[in-house]
Amino acid sequence: MDTVIHDRYVSRTERQAGMVVREEPVVYNEGTYADALSAEQLSAYQDKGFLVLEELFSPQEVKKLLAEVKALGERDDLQNRPELVTEPDSQELRSLFSVHQFSTMFERLMQDPRLVNVARQILGSEVYVHQSRVNYKPGFDGDEFYWHSDFETWHVEDGMPEMRALSCSVLLTDNDACNGPLMLIPGSHRTFLVCPGETPENHHERSLKKQEFGVPDPLSLTLLVEEYGGIEALEAKAGSVVLFDSNAMHGSAGNISPWPRVNAYFVYNSVENKLETPKYGLEPRPEYLAHRKNTQTIQPKPFQDN
Amino acid sequence: MDTVIHDRYVSRTERQAGMVVREEPVVYNEGTYADALSAEQLSAYQDKGFLVLEELFSPQEVKKLLAEVKALGERDDLQNRPELVTEPDSQELRSLFSVHQFSTMFERLMQDPRLVNVARQILGSEVYVHQSRVNYKPGFDGDEFYWHSDFETWHVEDGMPEMRALSCSVLLTDNDACNGPLMLIPGSHRTFLVCPGETPENHHERSLKKQEFGVPDPLSLTLLVEEYGGIEALEAKAGSVVLFDSNAMHGSAGNISPWPRVNAYFVYNSVENKLETPKYGLEPRPEYLAHRKNTQTIQPKPFQDN
Repeated sequence: MDTVIHDRYVSRTERQAGMVVREEPVVYNEGTYADALSAEQLSAYQDKGFLVLEELFSPQEVKKLLAEVKALGERDDLQNRPELVTEPDSQELRSLFSVHQFSTMFERLMQDPRLVNVARQILGSEVYVHQSRVNYKPGFDGDEFYWHSDFETWHVEDGMPEMRALSCSVLLTDNDACNGPLMLIPGSHRTFLVCPGETPENHHERSLKKQEFGVPDPLSLTLLVEEYGGIEALEAKAGSVVLFDSNAMHGSAGNISPWPRVNAYFVYNSVENKLETPKYGLEPRPEYLAHRKNTQTIQPKPFQDN
Repeated sequence: MDTVIHDRYVSRTERQAGMVVREEPVVYNEGTYADALSAEQLSAYQDKGFLVLEELFSPQEVKKLLAEVKALGERDDLQNRPELVTEPDSQELRSLFSVHQFSTMFERLMQDPRLVNVARQILGSEVYVHQSRVNYKPGFDGDEFYWHSDFETWHVEDGMPEMRALSCSVLLTDNDACNGPLMLIPGSHRTFLVCPGETPENHHERSLKKQEFGVPDPLSLTLLVEEYGGIEALEAKAGSVVLFDSNAMHGSAGNISPWPRVNAYFVYNSVENKLETPKYGLEPRPEYLAHRKNTQTIQPKPFQDN
């Protein structure tokens, strides 16, 4: 694809809101590259743009990972690093980006065949990690995440060429209707929503707190929801994994329950879809938000041996 | 009860957060005053502090009521009235207080035996309406309502003596996990949470937009949730009615779905529990937020004849 002459996924320019039909496959090479998922699972992912793998990790594994999140939050050497996002009102960990570089345990989780082989199968190639993080969303925290397509951001701000990446959220606490679960619009991954408004410089410094650009318009969202039949709120137990396509429209309401929501989050990208230059003369975002240098192919290696 | 010498439900004073055990009954006179609810329903309400009556109103009734909400939003004579709360960014109806005074249809809904006799049975006396309103919460609207006990506000700001009132929310649209449903803490109605912080003058002018006072502290909330076993997110179809005790702790997350949430809301109070003077020298709130003059006993009269 010649991005200079023709960018199918123009967004945040002088163009107004619009809807572009996806051309790329959802499951590449018909899912023959690896054999982690069944034909039924692949077909569900293809149709909806997401899939929940219930309790893929054991309670023991979840317990170890939660203890590691706690330990990471207390590590002195991370306190002033840009990868660590703390609560506005305290020094508590909210997100730690590039977590696989700071924690051997999370590096091994990222390499676990239960995740990597799913990514390899869906993306039809070897994969590397575009972004990794742990999120610790405390209870009583009202912050919502409005609807967005990750690909819209990755395409515009990171120069990711095509929709050949997926997100993998490993739930480390239960998610239900009461603590602001992830909501997805089934089928939305087949349509790219052009977002109105231009992206300012250093947008990312603000966007980690609140999304202001790359926000889809209400009419297009309504059409997506009506076209594809609704919204699914994902309720799943700790240890479950939610996979979703890079262009799946998703968001979450705030969490006013007392229960924190903790997850580990890995974005696997095809090695054939590595980043190009960002659009519209934007500076590349920092390495920990979008790996450009650190893009080693991931070799599957079981987490349990850790 | 001598409120001068001893107020069991002191809140928002120099006192810090605290928990006070409720002394009043939940169901008065053992539910013998009327016979709208079964023994099982009464018992469930007594235990949890709330009850859902599924699809109590027919789709035809819901349709008529929704059309009336629309018509009310377009009525010129209401545009500058204080009872009408509009969206911050537009003139669209968000809430209309004292709706029974502006709409015969909602007055008849308020008088419907399916609601009034439930209130009479639970409160063990004749009843009047302390507050009425319709709420129209547009889709894509992120506003949440943080945890609160209505009784805490009514006691402090309105001088309501005892926990002998209940709220009745008639759902005019479906509520599910995706559009920020009402969440309740089962059993929380048995404990009064003393809220820290004093109430400023004319608090109500701000509190309709955002709750800043009468906010329970996180530790007490956590204890309530742990003591009583969780949070229930109420998912119910349009036409269903949610009844909840005046002291039931409740809140709701924001609604980022495209679907509006519309309901009619009536607070029935026992005629033996009429308002006294507000606490701490506060001025009484306006009549439309807390009826002091307009407190006629409600005569049951079927809505269908309307």
